[in-house]
Amino acid sequence: MNAEHPIDAANAVPHAAPSIGGPILSISRRTRSTPFSRRVEASGVRGYTVYNHTLLPTVFESAEADYRHLKSHVQVWDVSCERQIELRGPDCAKLAQMLTPRDLRRIQIGQCLYAPVVDETGAILNDPVLLKLAEDRWWVSIADSDVQYWAQGLAVGRCLDVDVAEINVSPLAVQGPKADQLMSRVFGEGAEDIRFFRARWLEFNGTSFLVSRSGYSKQGGFEIYVEGDALAEPLWDALFTAGADLNVRPGGPNLIERIEGGLLSYGNDMTRENTPFECNLDAFCTPETAFGCIGRSALLREAEAGPKRRIRGLAIKGERTPSCREPWPVRIGSERVGQVTSAAWSPDFGVTVAIGMLDRGHWEPGTEVVVDTPGGRRTATVCLLPFEQV
Amino acid sequence: MNAEHPIDAANAVPHAAPSIGGPILSISRRTRSTPFSRRVEASGVRGYTVYNHTLLPTVFESAEADYRHLKSHVQVWDVSCERQIELRGPDCAKLAQMLTPRDLRRIQIGQCLYAPVVDETGAILNDPVLLKLAEDRWWVSIADSDVQYWAQGLAVGRCLDVDVAEINVSPLAVQGPKADQLMSRVFGEGAEDIRFFRARWLEFNGTSFLVSRSGYSKQGGFEIYVEGDALAEPLWDALFTAGADLNVRPGGPNLIERIEGGLLSYGNDMTRENTPFECNLDAFCTPETAFGCIGRSALLREAEAGPKRRIRGLAIKGERTPSCREPWPVRIGSERVGQVTSAAWSPDFGVTVAIGMLDRGHWEPGTEVVVDTPGGRRTATVCLLPFEQV
Repeated sequence: MNAEHPIDAANAVPHAAPSIGGPILSISRRTRSTPFSRRVEASGVRGYTVYNHTLLPTVFESAEADYRHLKSHVQVWDVSCERQIELRGPDCAKLAQMLTPRDLRRIQIGQCLYAPVVDETGAILNDPVLLKLAEDRWWVSIADSDVQYWAQGLAVGRCLDVDVAEINVSPLAVQGPKADQLMSRVFGEGAEDIRFFRARWLEFNGTSFLVSRSGYSKQGGFEIYVEGDALAEPLWDALFTAGADLNVRPGGPNLIERIEGGLLSYGNDMTRENTPFECNLDAFCTPETAFGCIGRSALLREAEAGPKRRIRGLAIKGERTPSCREPWPVRIGSERVGQVTSAAWSPDFGVTVAIGMLDRGHWEPGTEVVVDTPGGRRTATVCLLPFEQV
Repeated sequence: MNAEHPIDAANAVPHAAPSIGGPILSISRRTRSTPFSRRVEASGVRGYTVYNHTLLPTVFESAEADYRHLKSHVQVWDVSCERQIELRGPDCAKLAQMLTPRDLRRIQIGQCLYAPVVDETGAILNDPVLLKLAEDRWWVSIADSDVQYWAQGLAVGRCLDVDVAEINVSPLAVQGPKADQLMSRVFGEGAEDIRFFRARWLEFNGTSFLVSRSGYSKQGGFEIYVEGDALAEPLWDALFTAGADLNVRPGGPNLIERIEGGLLSYGNDMTRENTPFECNLDAFCTPETAFGCIGRSALLREAEAGPKRRIRGLAIKGERTPSCREPWPVRIGSERVGQVTSAAWSPDFGVTVAIGMLDRGHWEPGTEVVVDTPGGRRTATVCLLPFEQV
């Protein structure tokens, strides 16, 4: 029985935590190891995925045990797979604005901005976080696609004075309710003073690392941008030594927690088939003032007409489902009105929490729908994200 | 013990075939399943990798059992991960030539060309096979990077009249010495008449599929470009029914066989750190006449100076090594002269066959070197690729 692996779904025991099993990942140089991989593997990682051609740990004990721990204590995550694409040169702000329909005119040095990247049709190519380090030096902390190729193609095509390069920076995330305590023990009081989505340089072992208050969970925490390999293991070890009494453990982005928190995943909940408006990213998509964005005209048109579908949460009733490997049809009667793209049993909500996309006319919270899961037909209720305890 | 997983290398038994174990792959919508995945999993796939955001089966029985079978019989491979990027429109030949330093002026309709894609510095971004279907319609059968973003960025940046899109085509490979027999049973005599790296439309169940004589092994065979999902499982089933007495089995690109055959792997043996000349791709890199190629000037300079390193084979003596997850240093005395990037024990050669890169002055066949593997220091002999039985 294996929630990762729907071919065994028929044998699944309702509401029992899934065990770990299924095909192994064949690891090679192409599925890049990270400066933390030795520590991750010595900690007994049980599941990996591949993200930006790089290993990303997914499971240490089980999805549910890791979830419970993340919501109670503090975890250290090897998110080296969040590769940093450096834009450097006099045209780097111009290029950044070509990439995204978010208005970047007021971004400050040391600020992080979530900024979807779109092509000339308004289709999402990636949903990175932009980090402005200096007027002529930005980092793009990317989701799972080689969006640097798009940026470089535009820069070469338009003869911009900017270099685009993936640099040797490996983010390490510290996430969970005790993250502030742990970080201040290792980096001093400066860590706790960092505001949400702001970054500052903090010292560790005589070297300054950029540290931001951010991360792919709703439990609070930080991301440390570790440059080079030399201090990666010393930093990992320092966090585990300093956090022993905080019950620190290794972890990774947790499927259950991120669905509860409404954190979208590029490749899962949104793809090139979608626009930022369809993904509810209206707050990060302002084509009216994003002058220079390649997708501006297409998105201005969509802003006027409104998107034809929207991302929503769905609370799926009944027994535990297998995990979602391919979109699950959502219906009202015989009419297909959308699809589910991520789903996981939530111990805290007592339902299967899911993220999907609903067609216009059917996305109102409270709408009752049917979801065709590989485990059978289920009823579900549409809701807003993040999920809120009722 | 697990050759995929060097942390267990210290316990490895010399010359024993490795068993399958290690972290599982967490599968989601983002690691795309294919139209063949249900058949692949019903066949008991034991190892996967992720390639172009898509599942690629790597192991069914064991690397060595799969290797022996591939060299003796016929296998069916789900290589849907070789995504097809379609270039369509009046400027598609112009865009194709911008991408590659191979002279494309003489490519004919129905011809396949292996053509490295480079950026403006001559760095390799991908090493696809180009397929010319019509004057205004080309397919780019890509290796593991989102090179469509580069092509689209250039097309938008330069205002070319060409669309760039990943299309719903899932290649299925038929590889091995009995591939001609099996293909002619399913597609008729037309299959056997296809010349190497040529493609032709053949009928299956009333639908025409493009079929080429090509594939990522040296055992001979075909690739069938399956459009859409509807006929994928019927085609898989027809091949297994027709091939029962040929001992047909599912398989995938085999590490041992592809190293013996000198087939390079993008992300393993070559990366953006390299140029086509460094990768011995001189026959596919002719910047003198590749007018319009974005990397032409850089590669013309390198053609004059000669590359500073070259890909070579290495025969590594002694006990079985773990698999290569990160480059292994190659030395002569205390001087570092190169690195190994792929390695596997070859039952037929009785040594560990490897692919690596040697600095100028040290790449002559017969050069004796030392390789620092995770299993210990080994002596090795530099050789040309493919490996040849002595």
